[in-house]
Amino acid sequence: MNKKSSTPSLLVIGSVAFDDIETPFGKSKKTLGGSATYISLAASYFTKPGLVAVVGEDFKQQHCEILQNRKVDLMGLEMAKGKTFAWGGKYHFDLNTRETLFTHLNVFENFSPELSPAHRNTPYAFLGNTHPAQQIRIISQLKNPKFVGLDTMNYWIEKTPKELGQVLKMVDALVINDSEARELSKEHNLLKAAKKISGLMHQSRKRLLIIKRGEYGLLLFQGGKIFHLPGFPLEDVVDPTGAGDSFAGGFMGHLSAKSDFSWDSFKKACVAGSAMASFCVQDFGTQTLQNLSRTKISQRIQGFRHLTRF
Amino acid sequence: MNKKSSTPSLLVIGSVAFDDIETPFGKSKKTLGGSATYISLAASYFTKPGLVAVVGEDFKQQHCEILQNRKVDLMGLEMAKGKTFAWGGKYHFDLNTRETLFTHLNVFENFSPELSPAHRNTPYAFLGNTHPAQQIRIISQLKNPKFVGLDTMNYWIEKTPKELGQVLKMVDALVINDSEARELSKEHNLLKAAKKISGLMHQSRKRLLIIKRGEYGLLLFQGGKIFHLPGFPLEDVVDPTGAGDSFAGGFMGHLSAKSDFSWDSFKKACVAGSAMASFCVQDFGTQTLQNLSRTKISQRIQGFRHLTRF
Repeated sequence: MNKKSSTPSLLVIGSVAFDDIETPFGKSKKTLGGSATYISLAASYFTKPGLVAVVGEDFKQQHCEILQNRKVDLMGLEMAKGKTFAWGGKYHFDLNTRETLFTHLNVFENFSPELSPAHRNTPYAFLGNTHPAQQIRIISQLKNPKFVGLDTMNYWIEKTPKELGQVLKMVDALVINDSEARELSKEHNLLKAAKKISGLMHQSRKRLLIIKRGEYGLLLFQGGKIFHLPGFPLEDVVDPTGAGDSFAGGFMGHLSAKSDFSWDSFKKACVAGSAMASFCVQDFGTQTLQNLSRTKISQRIQGFRHLTRF
Repeated sequence: MNKKSSTPSLLVIGSVAFDDIETPFGKSKKTLGGSATYISLAASYFTKPGLVAVVGEDFKQQHCEILQNRKVDLMGLEMAKGKTFAWGGKYHFDLNTRETLFTHLNVFENFSPELSPAHRNTPYAFLGNTHPAQQIRIISQLKNPKFVGLDTMNYWIEKTPKELGQVLKMVDALVINDSEARELSKEHNLLKAAKKISGLMHQSRKRLLIIKRGEYGLLLFQGGKIFHLPGFPLEDVVDPTGAGDSFAGGFMGHLSAKSDFSWDSFKKACVAGSAMASFCVQDFGTQTLQNLSRTKISQRIQGFRHLTRF
């Protein structure tokens, strides 16, 4: 095995799913989704992602091709007996709130990947939202990674605080939304929340905290430093599904391409991530993420500059 | 009369009130408030504001001094028989929502100022929230002003759309919050809302629209251009009362000091306004606005640069 060519630059561990999405602007049935899908597609414009996930027997060649067309390494995509994780959600008028219509974990319920030797050497990794014990198991298989990012959710903050505390000590960046940050820290004020959460992370790691605020953008914290980036103002927001994961993909992809851990580089990675999130919401599912260009992405990054610079 | 020395640079027409404020961090009784108070105090760090308002017999020398200490011109402060406008409000835990406990318009109910000859020559003016017919009457008294800004609220959008439509054609800038922008335009998406609202303003004027989003900051629109500025992240938000008016004061004060109507200048005026709003919320009522320095303000403006630049 040629290790060099088969080691991706960024390992993405998470879910691949079929989503049924309903927004005020339309419906989309059995659309390819899941955290690992969005993260990998968004990252693919910056670096070579390798996807680690599980799908069921209903996952077809056409779905693989969506990822392969973006040169996503699928060596870690396992096919198991049963059905692919399926999720249904309905967004309300303002697109800020959504209702989960169903969640069928299916094959994702027993997802417990053994990383291949090539994957263990990946320098960058991002772990989508799943059981923190599972996240610990996966990170433990990585050999001296340069940078590991993590997502989690309210459910794990409530149900598995001990395991979550452990995994927080193993990562360089935590990417969560404001309500999760408030619940994790038991602080309403986001500055106080950020201080507390940084205290839960490992001193010797990079200790980045990114708090996502939906259409209002994000806050990036490291030590006493703060960076704010708004959501990109768009007239045509069609489907917010996957925006947070697309952010993570762009962020990690940019970081792995630059290998620069300065504050400036982290800020730019946030802008790259936000650009990807802004594209993601302009059509259903992964539609826009499948057909972007570096030129379009650079233009949007420039758009962020015009929007915020004074 | 020495006209030169008695003409302020910025005329502020609005309310002076006594506020009873309750927040999760404390209470404040019969605190000097009202739109014209906050706007004038905030503007006083940049320019010479003249206040046009009405108070009742319960308005004392000590209240005048708060404004006089900041060299606010009080030639337009009328004292009428009766009581000063009184307002009581209670903020909920997250400080984003508030409940009005009482509103006693008192002498403000019949507020219909005749501007003095000196005041009619003021080059800059800002009209706090009041009946649009009243706003029209006041603007009509101004002689060829350089720049006029306006505030309004949902009540007038619903009750007096015709008069509001008229006054919108007479001003250069409209400063409203997101829910007001949505109601005025009947568009949820703020970009679409901004386009519609700009269409209601006069072609030959500057047509600035500023949409305030509370702790999330603001959006500035002019033609196809957009600027976003976040709210300044603070650990110690104590009382949000007057934040929007402090913004307007800083914005108008900065503009009147610079007399520059370029896009760059409008953006900087927004930053100055946001700096004043951020100071305002750090204590009850006008406490912080009474004792600032240009150095502190410059530092906060620099803080906004660090927060947003990439």
